[in-house]
Amino acid sequence: VSEPTILDLRVRYVECDPMGVAHHSSYPVWFEMGRTEWCRTHAGGSYRALESEGIGLVVVDLHVKYRRPARYDDVVRVETKLTRLTRARLEHAYVLSRDGVELTVASTVVACVDADGRARAIPESILALG
Amino acid sequence: VSEPTILDLRVRYVECDPMGVAHHSSYPVWFEMGRTEWCRTHAGGSYRALESEGIGLVVVDLHVKYRRPARYDDVVRVETKLTRLTRARLEHAYVLSRDGVELTVASTVVACVDADGRARAIPESILALG
Amino acid sequence: VSEPTILDLRVRYVECDPMGVAHHSSYPVWFEMGRTEWCRTHAGGSYRALESEGIGLVVVDLHVKYRRPARYDDVVRVETKLTRLTRARLEHAYVLSRDGVELTVASTVVACVDADGRARAIPESILALG
Amino acid sequence: VSEPTILDLRVRYVECDPMGVAHHSSYPVWFEMGRTEWCRTHAGGSYRALESEGIGLVVVDLHVKYRRPARYDDVVRVETKLTRLTRARLEHAYVLSRDGVELTVASTVVACVDADGRARAIPESILALG
Repeated sequence: VSEPTILDLRVRYVECDPMGVAHHSSYPVWFEMGRTEWCRTHAGGSYRALESEGIGLVVVDLHVKYRRPARYDDVVRVETKLTRLTRARLEHAYVLSRDGVELTVASTVVACVDADGRARAIPESILALG
Repeated sequence: VSEPTILDLRVRYVECDPMGVAHHSSYPVWFEMGRTEWCRTHAGGSYRALESEGIGLVVVDLHVKYRRPARYDDVVRVETKLTRLTRARLEHAYVLSRDGVELTVASTVVACVDADGRARAIPESILALG
Repeated sequence: VSEPTILDLRVRYVECDPMGVAHHSSYPVWFEMGRTEWCRTHAGGSYRALESEGIGLVVVDLHVKYRRPARYDDVVRVETKLTRLTRARLEHAYVLSRDGVELTVASTVVACVDADGRARAIPESILALG
Repeated sequence: VSEPTILDLRVRYVECDPMGVAHHSSYPVWFEMGRTEWCRTHAGGSYRALESEGIGLVVVDLHVKYRRPARYDDVVRVETKLTRLTRARLEHAYVLSRDGVELTVASTVVACVDADGRARAIPESILALG
């Protein structure tokens, strides 16, 4: 339901582990950065603006398939795409690649909460994307 | 194929985000700590000993379902269980709870690599658990 | 002005870098955990309770001297001590050791802020420690 | 002894804490990124190349003065400058700013180690900068 948003980033030293590759817990952070850029491009404003209105987007499901490692100082590309949109949830798919070679694919489901952490409907500005 | 290993940990301030709850990328770290303790209890020695023999265990699949948030300073329990074992892969399931209330469930698939990152068979000491 | 608070912790895999040792940015996190325990023991309640009253303690100065590395799965000890207390600031000193051998020493200065991030006086419950 | 190297980066959501500002342990990571870029620009090649030759640069001293907070999604600038160079150590100074306003200043001392973690002399390619 939307074009992928592209974000290039450089793998940090701190993100790499004693095996010399990016630790698997670094990837969800990169996908969140992908969502931040997706939000800026497609959802009518920044995620920070949503949050300042008391709206939070919480990850309720995360699935990552790690195929090839990323290494320190690699420039990797995160492609973020909205794959499903309901009144309550946003589903995104991600492809992480380096020089056109796919390293990792992932998906998340995000739900909308109010300032007290209670479920609420997705804002209209985002629903309009569907 | 084995009893769950239990690990209790306290949620760190740095692990929490502006919504005041543990960030979703903290959980894979806690599950890895669960695997470290599982390894110590069931796999005939520490993961560090395996690594010093040039054997690495890399996460190839991660799936997390977040149901209720964990908060700063909460003591949470990670239960780690081996659910499947082949010559090439280890599958674990995790339950994260607080005071007996389930917060998050997850699963990982781990593959064995040598010091150069090439796939190799799971060590006999671990296979013997099957 | 107070006894050191002792916290033992196990170095996490994710906290280690391609050199196989704990990354230097992990240590400020451990010192913060030390402060959390210091707060629980000495400051008449938990840091979480302070925060729920709209009081924040922000680090304004951090100085760390790294002498010997900590490694994955090491159990290290953090000793946290209040070294100075004024109406506006708390100063702590930290010693990180493994099996009685000093690895790292550090100090922090913490200031008190209200919910909007403005400087405010240290709460009486903490001042009473001086 | 050299011009500052400039790196702009966007503050990540995961780097922010329940007070809604960048956690103080995020800054050493940004300064390390600054050193990586300084190394690329001034030290005749990438830090990754040094490391593949079995040379490591370890932080032995870190001092950070936090003046104003950085927030989620802020674009901040890291300026990294070599301030002192001996046969055994490199000293850098850092300024972190947003829109020209200084937020944080810091300094590090870095020592050179071989693949086994033993102190060794700084490589000639870096000494030549002095």
